[in-house]
Amino acid sequence: MAATARLISDRYGKSRVRLMRVTRHDSHHDVDEWNVQILLSGDFETAHTLGDNSKILPTDTMKNTVYYVARKSTATSMEDYAKELVDFLLSRNPQVSAAECVVESSLWKRLTVAGKPHPTAFMRGSDERQITTVARKQGEAFSISSGLDDLTVMKTSKSGFVGYIKDELTTLPPTTDRLFATAMRAMWTYTPKALAAGIDFNKVRTHLREAMLATFADHDSLSVQQTLFAMGEAALAHTNVISEITLRMPNKHQLPVDMTRFGLDNPNHIFVPTDEPHGTIEATITRA
Amino acid sequence: MAATARLISDRYGKSRVRLMRVTRHDSHHDVDEWNVQILLSGDFETAHTLGDNSKILPTDTMKNTVYYVARKSTATSMEDYAKELVDFLLSRNPQVSAAECVVESSLWKRLTVAGKPHPTAFMRGSDERQITTVARKQGEAFSISSGLDDLTVMKTSKSGFVGYIKDELTTLPPTTDRLFATAMRAMWTYTPKALAAGIDFNKVRTHLREAMLATFADHDSLSVQQTLFAMGEAALAHTNVISEITLRMPNKHQLPVDMTRFGLDNPNHIFVPTDEPHGTIEATITRA
Amino acid sequence: MAATARLISDRYGKSRVRLMRVTRHDSHHDVDEWNVQILLSGDFETAHTLGDNSKILPTDTMKNTVYYVARKSTATSMEDYAKELVDFLLSRNPQVSAAECVVESSLWKRLTVAGKPHPTAFMRGSDERQITTVARKQGEAFSISSGLDDLTVMKTSKSGFVGYIKDELTTLPPTTDRLFATAMRAMWTYTPKALAAGIDFNKVRTHLREAMLATFADHDSLSVQQTLFAMGEAALAHTNVISEITLRMPNKHQLPVDMTRFGLDNPNHIFVPTDEPHGTIEATITRA
Amino acid sequence: MAATARLISDRYGKSRVRLMRVTRHDSHHDVDEWNVQILLSGDFETAHTLGDNSKILPTDTMKNTVYYVARKSTATSMEDYAKELVDFLLSRNPQVSAAECVVESSLWKRLTVAGKPHPTAFMRGSDERQITTVARKQGEAFSISSGLDDLTVMKTSKSGFVGYIKDELTTLPPTTDRLFATAMRAMWTYTPKALAAGIDFNKVRTHLREAMLATFADHDSLSVQQTLFAMGEAALAHTNVISEITLRMPNKHQLPVDMTRFGLDNPNHIFVPTDEPHGTIEATITRA
Repeated sequence: MAATARLISDRYGKSRVRLMRVTRHDSHHDVDEWNVQILLSGDFETAHTLGDNSKILPTDTMKNTVYYVARKSTATSMEDYAKELVDFLLSRNPQVSAAECVVESSLWKRLTVAGKPHPTAFMRGSDERQITTVARKQGEAFSISSGLDDLTVMKTSKSGFVGYIKDELTTLPPTTDRLFATAMRAMWTYTPKALAAGIDFNKVRTHLREAMLATFADHDSLSVQQTLFAMGEAALAHTNVISEITLRMPNKHQLPVDMTRFGLDNPNHIFVPTDEPHGTIEATITRA
Repeated sequence: MAATARLISDRYGKSRVRLMRVTRHDSHHDVDEWNVQILLSGDFETAHTLGDNSKILPTDTMKNTVYYVARKSTATSMEDYAKELVDFLLSRNPQVSAAECVVESSLWKRLTVAGKPHPTAFMRGSDERQITTVARKQGEAFSISSGLDDLTVMKTSKSGFVGYIKDELTTLPPTTDRLFATAMRAMWTYTPKALAAGIDFNKVRTHLREAMLATFADHDSLSVQQTLFAMGEAALAHTNVISEITLRMPNKHQLPVDMTRFGLDNPNHIFVPTDEPHGTIEATITRA
Repeated sequence: MAATARLISDRYGKSRVRLMRVTRHDSHHDVDEWNVQILLSGDFETAHTLGDNSKILPTDTMKNTVYYVARKSTATSMEDYAKELVDFLLSRNPQVSAAECVVESSLWKRLTVAGKPHPTAFMRGSDERQITTVARKQGEAFSISSGLDDLTVMKTSKSGFVGYIKDELTTLPPTTDRLFATAMRAMWTYTPKALAAGIDFNKVRTHLREAMLATFADHDSLSVQQTLFAMGEAALAHTNVISEITLRMPNKHQLPVDMTRFGLDNPNHIFVPTDEPHGTIEATITRA
Repeated sequence: MAATARLISDRYGKSRVRLMRVTRHDSHHDVDEWNVQILLSGDFETAHTLGDNSKILPTDTMKNTVYYVARKSTATSMEDYAKELVDFLLSRNPQVSAAECVVESSLWKRLTVAGKPHPTAFMRGSDERQITTVARKQGEAFSISSGLDDLTVMKTSKSGFVGYIKDELTTLPPTTDRLFATAMRAMWTYTPKALAAGIDFNKVRTHLREAMLATFADHDSLSVQQTLFAMGEAALAHTNVISEITLRMPNKHQLPVDMTRFGLDNPNHIFVPTDEPHGTIEATITRA
């Protein structure tokens, strides 16, 4: 049947390679927990059509490579580590035309004991993950996007939703005072120019995150869309090393309980948090 | 700051709208459990930049629409239901340039009692989900992809992996007899011609699923890639109403336990099932 | 501070030891996927108070033991395997006063290809798990409970709920026709007499499951409580090798959509499936 | 068949009733997210045997009660709220012999914007949950246990494991320097005397949590058991309003990667975090 089908595209690699890195300074330790995925594209047609594995680097070897490069690396950001990993794979595998590495970092915070940061004890933070996607084609420059996911935030003032379309299927009442809760995802793309000049990825991430959170907290929100746009605008205004940013902000509805059935009022006091259904709002924003 | 940023793209809608539909025949009932997502694109720039909601159909109304259309619909497939839903939204909202509806269906099987199928009692099946994505732009034809996800299968014979690249980071031993377990995702795209002529979506789905499973079971697998390609080839060979198919098959490794440490052999008898790390193999296949 | 605190009770062991067993017959293979937990009680006080590990069997060794006993075992039920595992640990560790082993088995079904059961290809079933808890104290007899969990079923007729307490906080309307969906857990306890005589655990499990499902399907349900009791009664009536049974049946509500707001009726046609909140109903039933 | 089976015990109620409470002060807001479960025991035999619902308070009404009592309550701790809820149900339902309420609280932290705590914006914390179980029988005093679950912590020094039993199934090497990671659960029981006198539940919880974390961080750990015991001892030493404490600390293994295969050393630098299998260590500790 080989003549009847052909490959349009294909990728393979290893996912969910987990890594805990402990960096041991004299006075204290630092920890990084990374979840790594590697995907390779290249000359793999006969692997699919003939079962010829002669150009296949086993995904098990990719897993070993993740650990090997981590041991040798002195990178302080996951972006710089991912660049080393991608280059290691590209340089040794000419049959690979492009490699992509995704790293997700979990939050660990230093424990505070007796009012002081503890040198060697840590506590898991929230489910927020820091993310990067580092990709490179043989002979070309890196393309790098970074961001974060599942950063769950809520504001209890300065959020309303009025003036929308009303028809015979409308049941939502307008409100000038609602809870606004979301688990945001943001991914920004670094400019080639900035990448060529060198970037302090951790510093940029910290600042962009703060800029977006400040806007979230203080924005007079007329809709999720408007606040999302303002957050993206704040990120772009903060630094010119990024060219665009994509935000996805599900509207995790907090429904006020109707207490009138029980003879009580409910002045935005008691809500039901819900996971489903949820609004989905997403946009990509660039410089004007 | 409005001058400093602009929208490149945006979408919004409602996700995880769950629906149980009970169809009551005289002799028996049928049930469908659907999880619906709707996403709209269109003229929403001022919603983002000015907080002008006058063109915004609330996602809460979309939720109501999901139920309203389901109540009125006589569709027997989720694809036909999704088409009705998309057209309902497009026809009433000229500011919407394109609508996309994703439906995922959960498995419910009729209970067997005393050897007979029960008319009104059901059991949840596996985590496999049937999926469709139905999209339409104003004034254009539908584009429809359908498929399935998390169909978890395993074969205990006819699977090996040899002849791959070996280097100093290789630790995987070659084998001509391994377990091959995966949770497959397959999505195929219907041709415009077939869509115009009319399709029995449920029938096609059943047949493609069977064709792929038969290939999985019987294929002499030299790699996940080769079996994935053969499965896609079998799907394409089965019907000409689809133009291409994308398969993703994680390699959910089952590791043979090294019993030699305890003075025992282990002739592929006892394995450790693992979720992470896993291989990731994906390809899109079309007609030659 | 050792004088200020003392142990009341303690246990330790290994959890989530996963095992795939492939039994290779000439004509076909069988597979079992088990998730094993071992917990030991005994003379471990100084391990807690002094850090004295001399009586501690490492949990890593327990993991190895799970695989070692599985390799040597010819048990066809997980109960018989668990008995071997418990006895292996008790016999080699006099400091252990009691051992408990919990095994959960996942569903794998043989694939059907071209209308026939395939000898070596399998498909994952639902999330239902078969469970057993096998415990023994040094020098005493085994105590064994078995059952199942997360068996998700639904009936679309013969279920109502009326005649309950009504007060000023009541908003639930009575109904003589509702959906009844649950994810049941059932655990039964074998009698010492039956255990001494020998039990075909797999056969009992299959029959009790069928007896309970038949009752679920056909029962004219006036409440979850009544149906739960009838199911337990059916199980006890089926065999005298068990002395009691505990059932837990969350009421996974399926809420009829109020279509009157949109000018439509909804004759129990369209429902919203919900995960939370849910009713929780549980009871232990024995012979009268 | 009614004569063949009888109830030994039964309970019913409502689970996963979620609640977001916003307390609006002039200068700032406070938020509490609670997940409430209510279970009732009582005179419900005929509900099971006859389908007589005349003594059944619907679980839907219990859900309404959760919201109703929350709206009227001025409690600042979830324990005090749960006491009100239990008493509300007991006082109105003489057929109920005992009521139990479990509340789990999720972590929300105030956002910091421009270096200052924001009055009305919040961020989700870790998966740690604060828990209480408040139970009362008609005419008797409350019994209250409180604690926390899924508090995930890790220490990178002062942890070893040596001197344990070695046999032919041992493969774990002894170590005087390992990572120690756990997701701890702690539940303590308040004394009747302290409950009668009145307790600042939030204050006790904060202090016990700090006492246990300080011990975790600084303890020279010879085993999980020893550290667990020391943490329980520290809790008991901290306050006499609790009589005992139960701790469960899974050993979430961080496995050092064997780099010798690749010609590298690995001085406790790179580890593989694992979820399964895991050690399970649990003990209940009281005053000597």
